[in-house]
Amino acid sequence: MTGQYFQDVSRIIFNPDAEVDDTLCFKFYNATEVILGRPMEEWLRFSVCFWHSFRGTGADPFGQATIRRSWDDGSETMENYKRRLEASFEFFTKLGVKYWTFHDRDISPEGPTLAMTNRNLDEMTDLALNLQRQTGIQLLWNTCNLFAHPRYANGAATNPNAHVVAYAAAQVKKGLEIGRKLGAQNFVFWGGREGYNSLLNTDLDIEMSNMANFLRMALVYKKKIGFEGQLLIEPKPKEPTRHQYDYDAQTVTSFLRQFNLQNDFKLNIEPNHTTLAGHGYEHDIVMASTLGMLGSIDANTGSPDLGWDTDQFPMDIRACTAVMLQVIRQDGVQPGGLNFDAKVRRESTNAKDLFIAHIGAMDSFARGLRNAAKIIEDGIMSKHLKARYISFESGFGLKIATGQADLQECEEYVHQQGEPEAISGQQEHCEAIFNRYL
Amino acid sequence: MTGQYFQDVSRIIFNPDAEVDDTLCFKFYNATEVILGRPMEEWLRFSVCFWHSFRGTGADPFGQATIRRSWDDGSETMENYKRRLEASFEFFTKLGVKYWTFHDRDISPEGPTLAMTNRNLDEMTDLALNLQRQTGIQLLWNTCNLFAHPRYANGAATNPNAHVVAYAAAQVKKGLEIGRKLGAQNFVFWGGREGYNSLLNTDLDIEMSNMANFLRMALVYKKKIGFEGQLLIEPKPKEPTRHQYDYDAQTVTSFLRQFNLQNDFKLNIEPNHTTLAGHGYEHDIVMASTLGMLGSIDANTGSPDLGWDTDQFPMDIRACTAVMLQVIRQDGVQPGGLNFDAKVRRESTNAKDLFIAHIGAMDSFARGLRNAAKIIEDGIMSKHLKARYISFESGFGLKIATGQADLQECEEYVHQQGEPEAISGQQEHCEAIFNRYL
Amino acid sequence: MTGQYFQDVSRIIFNPDAEVDDTLCFKFYNATEVILGRPMEEWLRFSVCFWHSFRGTGADPFGQATIRRSWDDGSETMENYKRRLEASFEFFTKLGVKYWTFHDRDISPEGPTLAMTNRNLDEMTDLALNLQRQTGIQLLWNTCNLFAHPRYANGAATNPNAHVVAYAAAQVKKGLEIGRKLGAQNFVFWGGREGYNSLLNTDLDIEMSNMANFLRMALVYKKKIGFEGQLLIEPKPKEPTRHQYDYDAQTVTSFLRQFNLQNDFKLNIEPNHTTLAGHGYEHDIVMASTLGMLGSIDANTGSPDLGWDTDQFPMDIRACTAVMLQVIRQDGVQPGGLNFDAKVRRESTNAKDLFIAHIGAMDSFARGLRNAAKIIEDGIMSKHLKARYISFESGFGLKIATGQADLQECEEYVHQQGEPEAISGQQEHCEAIFNRYL
Amino acid sequence: MTGQYFQDVSRIIFNPDAEVDDTLCFKFYNATEVILGRPMEEWLRFSVCFWHSFRGTGADPFGQATIRRSWDDGSETMENYKRRLEASFEFFTKLGVKYWTFHDRDISPEGPTLAMTNRNLDEMTDLALNLQRQTGIQLLWNTCNLFAHPRYANGAATNPNAHVVAYAAAQVKKGLEIGRKLGAQNFVFWGGREGYNSLLNTDLDIEMSNMANFLRMALVYKKKIGFEGQLLIEPKPKEPTRHQYDYDAQTVTSFLRQFNLQNDFKLNIEPNHTTLAGHGYEHDIVMASTLGMLGSIDANTGSPDLGWDTDQFPMDIRACTAVMLQVIRQDGVQPGGLNFDAKVRRESTNAKDLFIAHIGAMDSFARGLRNAAKIIEDGIMSKHLKARYISFESGFGLKIATGQADLQECEEYVHQQGEPEAISGQQEHCEAIFNRYL
Repeated sequence: MTGQYFQDVSRIIFNPDAEVDDTLCFKFYNATEVILGRPMEEWLRFSVCFWHSFRGTGADPFGQATIRRSWDDGSETMENYKRRLEASFEFFTKLGVKYWTFHDRDISPEGPTLAMTNRNLDEMTDLALNLQRQTGIQLLWNTCNLFAHPRYANGAATNPNAHVVAYAAAQVKKGLEIGRKLGAQNFVFWGGREGYNSLLNTDLDIEMSNMANFLRMALVYKKKIGFEGQLLIEPKPKEPTRHQYDYDAQTVTSFLRQFNLQNDFKLNIEPNHTTLAGHGYEHDIVMASTLGMLGSIDANTGSPDLGWDTDQFPMDIRACTAVMLQVIRQDGVQPGGLNFDAKVRRESTNAKDLFIAHIGAMDSFARGLRNAAKIIEDGIMSKHLKARYISFESGFGLKIATGQADLQECEEYVHQQGEPEAISGQQEHCEAIFNRYL
Repeated sequence: MTGQYFQDVSRIIFNPDAEVDDTLCFKFYNATEVILGRPMEEWLRFSVCFWHSFRGTGADPFGQATIRRSWDDGSETMENYKRRLEASFEFFTKLGVKYWTFHDRDISPEGPTLAMTNRNLDEMTDLALNLQRQTGIQLLWNTCNLFAHPRYANGAATNPNAHVVAYAAAQVKKGLEIGRKLGAQNFVFWGGREGYNSLLNTDLDIEMSNMANFLRMALVYKKKIGFEGQLLIEPKPKEPTRHQYDYDAQTVTSFLRQFNLQNDFKLNIEPNHTTLAGHGYEHDIVMASTLGMLGSIDANTGSPDLGWDTDQFPMDIRACTAVMLQVIRQDGVQPGGLNFDAKVRRESTNAKDLFIAHIGAMDSFARGLRNAAKIIEDGIMSKHLKARYISFESGFGLKIATGQADLQECEEYVHQQGEPEAISGQQEHCEAIFNRYL
Repeated sequence: MTGQYFQDVSRIIFNPDAEVDDTLCFKFYNATEVILGRPMEEWLRFSVCFWHSFRGTGADPFGQATIRRSWDDGSETMENYKRRLEASFEFFTKLGVKYWTFHDRDISPEGPTLAMTNRNLDEMTDLALNLQRQTGIQLLWNTCNLFAHPRYANGAATNPNAHVVAYAAAQVKKGLEIGRKLGAQNFVFWGGREGYNSLLNTDLDIEMSNMANFLRMALVYKKKIGFEGQLLIEPKPKEPTRHQYDYDAQTVTSFLRQFNLQNDFKLNIEPNHTTLAGHGYEHDIVMASTLGMLGSIDANTGSPDLGWDTDQFPMDIRACTAVMLQVIRQDGVQPGGLNFDAKVRRESTNAKDLFIAHIGAMDSFARGLRNAAKIIEDGIMSKHLKARYISFESGFGLKIATGQADLQECEEYVHQQGEPEAISGQQEHCEAIFNRYL
Repeated sequence: MTGQYFQDVSRIIFNPDAEVDDTLCFKFYNATEVILGRPMEEWLRFSVCFWHSFRGTGADPFGQATIRRSWDDGSETMENYKRRLEASFEFFTKLGVKYWTFHDRDISPEGPTLAMTNRNLDEMTDLALNLQRQTGIQLLWNTCNLFAHPRYANGAATNPNAHVVAYAAAQVKKGLEIGRKLGAQNFVFWGGREGYNSLLNTDLDIEMSNMANFLRMALVYKKKIGFEGQLLIEPKPKEPTRHQYDYDAQTVTSFLRQFNLQNDFKLNIEPNHTTLAGHGYEHDIVMASTLGMLGSIDANTGSPDLGWDTDQFPMDIRACTAVMLQVIRQDGVQPGGLNFDAKVRRESTNAKDLFIAHIGAMDSFARGLRNAAKIIEDGIMSKHLKARYISFESGFGLKIATGQADLQECEEYVHQQGEPEAISGQQEHCEAIFNRYL
């Protein structure tokens, strides 16, 4: 692996004294620096996604491709696919990340039959395995693209045509196999066409039941072949399908519980999806973590004034701090990580922009980690939080909190104790303290 | 009960030939007309909510009360409370609805102690019982207001202070007792302050666990006293609390399943809350019904261009048709109903506006019912739907749908059958057909 | 022009007795039926847009093309371009519309140089002219696509590179020339890349000033060549660019006034853009019309729960009635029309779906026209409206309304007259009346 | 003025070494420290609003008052009004701000007639004048509350009843008089009920024309009495009225231009209103400033996941930096300022929370100012921006930018120069640089 596609970029280094406009080095991210007992790279487990960064062209619903890469001739040949993969490993290495992620169809073209498609995948994953071994880069997760091909227009697992469901299932079978081959630490399901565009032509009952059956088939096969990666579902509320069944963290959890799958799946949370579902940026991360379901994070952001998934690089230090605070609280997201499911703007047409965007986001998360670690170490915010709920740690409060009380006792307690005193929620005090760590 | 407060309004009649601007009669709602084997009033089970219509003053965050009623002197005396109740039963009777709903604090004032508050409630519910008997009006549901009093500013069941939780529990105890006394067919929990405004001062884990304990106490007590009403939870996403735990139908279902409460609670769905959660108008009704959780409906609407709960009277015939289609499909919502959780605009200051608004909404739902019944009778839309999913009724599709298939078989099937054919989703065709019923 | 691409569809007829599921005929649209003194087709002036219906493939940001047409081999040859155009005129004719619209790049491919691109356009517009003459179909408007080509990624008229601005200007020159050649009744500017994605790299002042210069150059040239079509600007708030300068009707009007262009441009209002700007469906139509700026309408709709332009066929009868009410009030939108800037869902893969979608929308607008005409004829709603503002027709109210009053007189008036009486806004009464016309 | 209501709070000091949880001092705001040639207090011109901080009770649409103050007995007596005013000046002084703002009805009660109302105002403004003289606090702006009283339910300047318009005009007359008396540096119009809830009962033409007449009467009277304050309009899109005519910065500018009022009014921009209008946080500040219309700023924030005006204290350092960057670019907002139109959360019931909230926001803006000043001093970002538009500074670009070019020349230029080269927009590079200043 010698640099051939990014010849004018060297390995990115940590340089805390970098000039303001030297955006090709880290000012805050220092992979091996120990924070709260662990190197930064272990807390952050950064991953580059192959699709946006090595298949993205800048095309959008209103415009053609804007981005041309030296390693990509736009053809559907295996040579071109291989060049892209090689370029990506050069990029991962120079950037200094340890993980990557991909969809099956990103790295390998479909052939005229499923069998030929799978042979292509075999060839490409041979190369990927080789590149992984040469570089030490690992596969954070892989996933199957069950949404781009026209056959999936009406859904994959939830398609009204059983033939399509079978096709999607066959594709997942291969996906699990290549996950195992490449040592994937997780396997992700993103149900981009699992939902409805109109209730007038949809039977929710059949579709959701089929989706559960589909996931169960994957679970059974995963165990059968001894694939040890964690299965993850990625919630998203309403794009491209008007309503997607995997709306948000709690909706997916509800679904998993309904079909008794909650112990075998966790969630891959993407904040841009969270905000599209109408929640605050870190809501689903905190909620999933609280429910014991946070498995991995797609580190990106949207513009809160827009109503679609912009997949921008996360640059908001406050938001990164809030995320890392929860990550530390649950002692890390391993075997998950922070996957940059983010794309450079279609106007950012220089190859260097790809580095700059990742570096900017990694620095933002590094600052988030540093801030969060300081918050944890100081203990001031957690002491405040603990004090707020202290009444449940003893006496009648403890009885309530442990489910030992009944309504009559509560009434009796109020008859005796009268009106509760007013206690300030002190939100602004908490915000001001939090700000001081930024 | 002789008309004394609405002397210029007679009992509202069905007059299909009414003039366009005579909005004080029904042009479409004919209570006793039989539709699909039942009188319209049994399908629709309309209910008037006491709070908006008899406690609403038109005050909003930017303005003072605009609405003055002849029966309300604005005082906190029991006499005034009683006059309001009497006026409301005159209204219910003249309008011709069979059900009403109320919050405990709407009908009866708080006293200096819980005991005195409860004595007030006893006195007021004696009157309510009397009025119910005189008029035949029944109580669709009652609920406890656990959000307006300052003690609940930081939550009721999820308050960080155990003393407040106990207070809320004591209030619910009395609420269940008066529900039983008045023969309530349901009892509703709306968690208006159960949620968070900032994650910085919130422990999600404690709060959600306490909420479950709270509901369980209510369930135990309900059984203990032999109250037979259905317990309902009303989802709402984010008002007044920034994030409310009962976000939408699936979130509440997830919560109930987590704490094994799903068999004892159903949902009271309000479409204005559904749209605030980012879904289409009828989404939560269809979703809750599909999950077997639809217990009752708060019939209202918002303006889709606004981000808060406007509680407008539902006047959209397309939307009412979609709702009634699902109601018929699940064979009615009894013991629930269609409760008009809606308020006249604060500029609609005439007492007649109160009638006109309810009549307009009842006529809209009556048109919705008539349209939906025709759709069901014709069977064209359901035949189309059934045909779309026909592949799951036999062969390999049936195997998939019943969870008998595995990934290897799916792959084998695809190797044999090849690529599925493209089948149009025909959304526009469905929309055009649907429109012809409107 | 003999039907060759839609052989299984005959000319669409008006059949008021059509079966519910026969969606290949009009049940409400009767082109020559006279409503308020004009044939329906003159009030409605329906137009089919070439781009969605003859260039749309169903591709979206998450998926490949789903739609294959018999007349389109996917190639970039002139033959293929010509076949598409011929198919479209067969479609227009069978559907029975009188107008079409197109972007320059839809009907003709770019060549290696501008000169060659323009020669392609000459050849294609020769064919178009021929087809127009054969069929009697007219060009409602044409427009230049200044957003799809990568050169326009950072804007066209507002590009930071003068070379690109010049390119866009040259393209508009040709656009005006072919508009004149084909007898376009209007010429539209839609600034799909005129705006900013980030304020960090944007100079608003330069960009908006350049936009004005650009429009002025077009205006000058239009007059110079004697092109008589009306110039129109189409507002859209935030897609694809995060913020677009032509946000909504009033924003564009503000811009035009700033640069003294308001007498030479009108607006082409698209309701799906209006709702994305946070307004009600018909807001911009009513506002533009009130400002004397409504020139034409792009008849479509979005899903109010989604945050992007879905360009669905308009099927909501209430909305169509509201639009037609305003169209009648301003005595029609000629030389503009109702252009179906709408696309079949990507799952609607049958060629018939293209007819069904247009017919469904035309029937919806026909119902809207019939309803609106009845509202106008009855005069009940306008009488109500006039009565509401009656105080400005005489006395001190007239003095205020005509700008003759001053603050001292107002104060004096209040000292004499005291507190105004409360008058109900009667919104629900108006809604109920409106509903009775639907 | 000796501290009597906030006895446990001393004058807030600048202490850069404060402990993290000591939120009762400034860590970043140092009033007299010179930044870019001016003391911080002159750049920032902080103002406390009287209404939220001294009339706010925590009541919301779902709950009663939660906040009780030692100086407020809740009565409508003049004594109580005076105590509030005295407490507020103690607060302003201890906090160290130089400006305050108020609505007429906040500081003084309405009487039974306008004359008596005005006498109350005379008495209260005598006290205010006294307090201003004693403390040196100045009036940034005053405004008339034309939205809270029921007479304004259907609008003030745009009310369909001329009597109400006259009443509002009389109120503004007095407002301008007391502005002059108290030396107000500006006078604000916020049209909280100027708009429509339903187009069915609204005549846009009359209402907007009346609004213009109303503003013109105010302008005439202002000049007549020699009041020298700047007139300001505050845009807000849709609360409380569904659509408000003063939607956003450009809409108001459009309106002013239509009625030739643009030279006599400027804008008071509130970012929480900007985000409700669908724009990014700083959009309207930058846009208004670019249009030469930025007069003052209401410094607050909303939660981007909520659809109403939460009026939170601005705590986001990135946002504050973006605002101050524009303020510096236009050389300050004097005679306007940064008015904290923000309220403590209703759960923040301690009097200290009022200080903590303002201090937190002032520190956030102080950090914003420091960051922005560094950005300006370094010049790196502006150099980058200038370079991006360099093509308009000479040659054919200059011709375009100055309106000297025509379409033929543009076409000729393209024929000669060919295709423009692609230039990266470098958004991520700009974001990364910007982040380094935070």
